[in-house]
Formats: sequence, structure tokens, C-alpha cells
Amino acid sequence: MQRIVKDYLEKNDKFAKYNNIKVIEVREGYAVTEMEINENHLNAAGTVHGGAIFSLADLALGAAANSFGVLNLSLNATISYIKTAKSGRLRAIAKKISESKKISVYKVDVKDNKDNLIAVMQGLAYSKDRNTL
Amino acid sequence: MQRIVKDYLEKNDKFAKYNNIKVIEVREGYAVTEMEINENHLNAAGTVHGGAIFSLADLALGAAANSFGVLNLSLNATISYIKTAKSGRLRAIAKKISESKKISVYKVDVKDNKDNLIAVMQGLAYSKDRNTL
Amino acid sequence: MQRIVKDYLEKNDKFAKYNNIKVIEVREGYAVTEMEINENHLNAAGTVHGGAIFSLADLALGAAANSFGVLNLSLNATISYIKTAKSGRLRAIAKKISESKKISVYKVDVKDNKDNLIAVMQGLAYSKDRNTL
Amino acid sequence: MQRIVKDYLEKNDKFAKYNNIKVIEVREGYAVTEMEINENHLNAAGTVHGGAIFSLADLALGAAANSFGVLNLSLNATISYIKTAKSGRLRAIAKKISESKKISVYKVDVKDNKDNLIAVMQGLAYSKDRNTL
Repeated sequence: MQRIVKDYLEKNDKFAKYNNIKVIEVREGYAVTEMEINENHLNAAGTVHGGAIFSLADLALGAAANSFGVLNLSLNATISYIKTAKSGRLRAIAKKISESKKISVYKVDVKDNKDNLIAVMQGLAYSKDRNTL
Repeated sequence: MQRIVKDYLEKNDKFAKYNNIKVIEVREGYAVTEMEINENHLNAAGTVHGGAIFSLADLALGAAANSFGVLNLSLNATISYIKTAKSGRLRAIAKKISESKKISVYKVDVKDNKDNLIAVMQGLAYSKDRNTL
Repeated sequence: MQRIVKDYLEKNDKFAKYNNIKVIEVREGYAVTEMEINENHLNAAGTVHGGAIFSLADLALGAAANSFGVLNLSLNATISYIKTAKSGRLRAIAKKISESKKISVYKVDVKDNKDNLIAVMQGLAYSKDRNTL
Repeated sequence: MQRIVKDYLEKNDKFAKYNNIKVIEVREGYAVTEMEINENHLNAAGTVHGGAIFSLADLALGAAANSFGVLNLSLNATISYIKTAKSGRLRAIAKKISESKKISVYKVDVKDNKDNLIAVMQGLAYSKDRNTL
């Protein structure tokens, strides 16, 4: 199932593809995404744009939420920025931390390749009945 | 001053440019951004990606925060999604709602071209001393 | 219906009662709560505790969410503090800003009696099937 | 220093005292608070009020933020509820997860006495210059 989610997202998420964000791993309630930083991720200050960091984390949350094979929608998310990033590879690790079936809470850590924490996200996803991927 | 902020962001924010997000208006503690939806903004469900909506709102917040001509950094942001969008033009309107100088609170509304509310954001920006744009 | 919600909350919400928080008005997707500040609301700095401000706003959100007569649960909430308060009366005004039935988004403004903005909250509530109050 | 913070908060935070919330432990960038649930913590549904859970978590965040002996103010906080609680003892564990001096990011976990996760909070605190406790 998790293999299908990974393939499905990689093939169909055009925004992620366009912004060079990849799904690396999907397990039940868990997912990892990566983004090799390039010029198109930078803001006016020359560091990675908050929107790019958010998008990386959001895809990890979405992949983890959909890891059960039932369509999940993102409801809201809070991101706090810890440290700026300029180059290298960023990685987002999403974990489900609740047990409920309809509404799930996720935590996402975004790290650089030296394992520094770049940002943290907390978000909710909603399982839309019986729709399957 | 606001003209400078607009030009500065348009020229230097590569992520915004790459994702077709434009600064339309900047006044003191207020800014508007727009994004004409194209295929590269879509998620696997064929609707505008949460990351694209967040990025549009985030740029409005950033432009409003920098409208005073002093460098401001985004600290955190919470986005809640109200309605999906598929095509047309999205617009984000950011307003400063606090009076403090160092830390400012902003609200952002994201709307489609029929004035439907697509998402709302609440965020904080931090004024980094005397650095000017 | 809204009269019932107001009475129901006033009678049964012991935490609100104990902390002197009152439901003033309930309409569809809208509610107002008030708190006359007393010594028990203060933090170590002598200003109204963040927890007291949050609780006031949270009850407004809850009353607005339950204004339709169907049991709603708070899922999450983000509060940003704008200005400290020391005495007088605080008021929270909650408004539903989404149209969905299962999951609703609310905005809450907390103001003092000079109409200064003290805090803003953004939160989600979940309608638990057909349970009625 | 941490002993002073604990004593200072216990003595001066009237809202916490009134609501039976105690500071149990304070170390650098870390704090634990506890609340023995009683009738005054309950909402209209007979479970612990979101405002009570938030207040418990908020005090842990505040104690951790003030553990360095410099006055810190809470800027904003996002709480997501995981599981309801009805009786027993709740505990909040706050950890600083950023390195910056002026603005700090904190994560707080709220657990019951069977170690179930009740809620998670993510918040920001601001160090107000050189004011000491």
C-alpha cells in the first residue's frame, strides 16, 4: 500500500514535482520527503523560502496521512521556523501522533543534511469517508 | 517606500517568481499578492496544492511586514484551508493587526476571483533591528 | 436553539463558571463571551494569564460551534497575543468563516473594554455526527 | 536559577494556583507542570476543558522559557487535542527546540498518568532584553 501512495504522489503531485520535492519513504502514519535546494527555492534574502519549506513539510504530512490508503485532506497546519537554510538537501519527517480515525494529528520535523532542525510543523488531516486512492 | 518593497520582492524572490506569485500592492502594514493558477500549482487530487496557497499567503505577509522598510523575518504561521480551488486567480490580502514594533501579528485572507474564502492565515514576523531593505 | 446553547453552557461548563467566564450571546455560527478580570486571572507578571485569555476565546469558539444544536468538539486552536490586559472586562467574539458541515473554521477576536485587540485565535471544530445538545 | 523560577512562578502566578496547576520541575529550556483534575476543570461534556489543558501546557512553556532567568513573554501557541481526559493527573512537558536567543520555539506534550498523549502544543516566546526575574 505504501509503495502505491509513494508512486501515486510522485506521478500526480505536479506542484511537488515542479518544486523538486520528492517522497522518499512512506510507512503507516509516517513519511519522509526531500528537496535538493536550488535557485528556484530562494527568497529575496537568498535563503530557502518559507513557502518552499512549508511545501516540503506539507507533502510529508500528506503522504503520511494517505499511507493508510484512504483519501486524507489537510485541514490546517502551523509551521515555526527555527533556522535558515541556503544550500544542500532538506528532509521532512512526518509522524502521526493521534489514534483517531477521522481526524489525525501530525508532527513534522524539517532538517538539513547536518541534522539541524530547520522548522517544525503541527497539522491536522481529515479522512474523507471511504474514498480510496 | 512601498514601491521599493514591491520592486525588491518581485526582482529578488525567485521562489515566488518561479511559482507565478506576484506582489500587487504594498501599503503600510498591508499587502496583496496574486497567483494565476496553472498546472504546476496542482496536487495529486487536481486542486491547488496547500503549499502553493501557503506560499501565496506567506508572500503577502512578508510584503506587509517589510512595508515599513525594515527587514522583517517570518517566525511562524498557521494556515486553515476553507475551500479547494482548481483554476482562475487566487489573491492573498495581508493586514498587520498589532502595534508592537519588534514582533508583529498578521492576518491573511486568501480568496478566489468570486471572492470565496479559500484559506486564512495567522502569522508572526520579527523586525530585525535596524537592517533596511 | 441559541438560547438553549447559552443556558446549557452556563449551567454545565464548570471550568468557565469557576473562572468567571460568561456566554453573553449566541447566534448561528457566532458567539460572544465575557470575563470581568479579577485577581485569579493574573500571571506572575501581574497581567491576565495567557491561559485565561485562551479560555475566554475557546468558550466563544465552542459556543459558536455548538450554536447549530449539534455537538461540536474543538480540534485545535492557534492564539496570538497582541496586548497585555490588567483590569476591566475582556470580551471574545467568535465567527464561523467556513461553510463545511463536518469541519468548521472559526476566528475569534479578544478585546478589552476600550476596544483594543488583546489576542486573536483561529481554530477548528468537528461536528460529531448527529449528537444533539 | 531554576529553583528560583519554580518558586517565583508558584508564588506569583495566581491563575495557575487558582486552577491547581503546579510547576514540578525546571531545567534549562525544559519544564514540567502538573494538574490534579478536579470538578472545576470540567467542560459541559464532563471532560477536562480545552482551556484547562491549554493553561497547563502554557505554564510549562512559560517556566521553560523563563528557565534562563531572563523575562520571556509568550507570543503565540497552537494546541491540538488528541484525547479527552476525565480524572487523574495531567502532566505537561515543555522543551525548547531552537537555539536563538531572542525568539525561542517550544514543544509541549500533555499526558495523562497512563502516559497517553492528551494534547500537543507548539509555541513561541520572546526574550525581553535584559529584564531578569
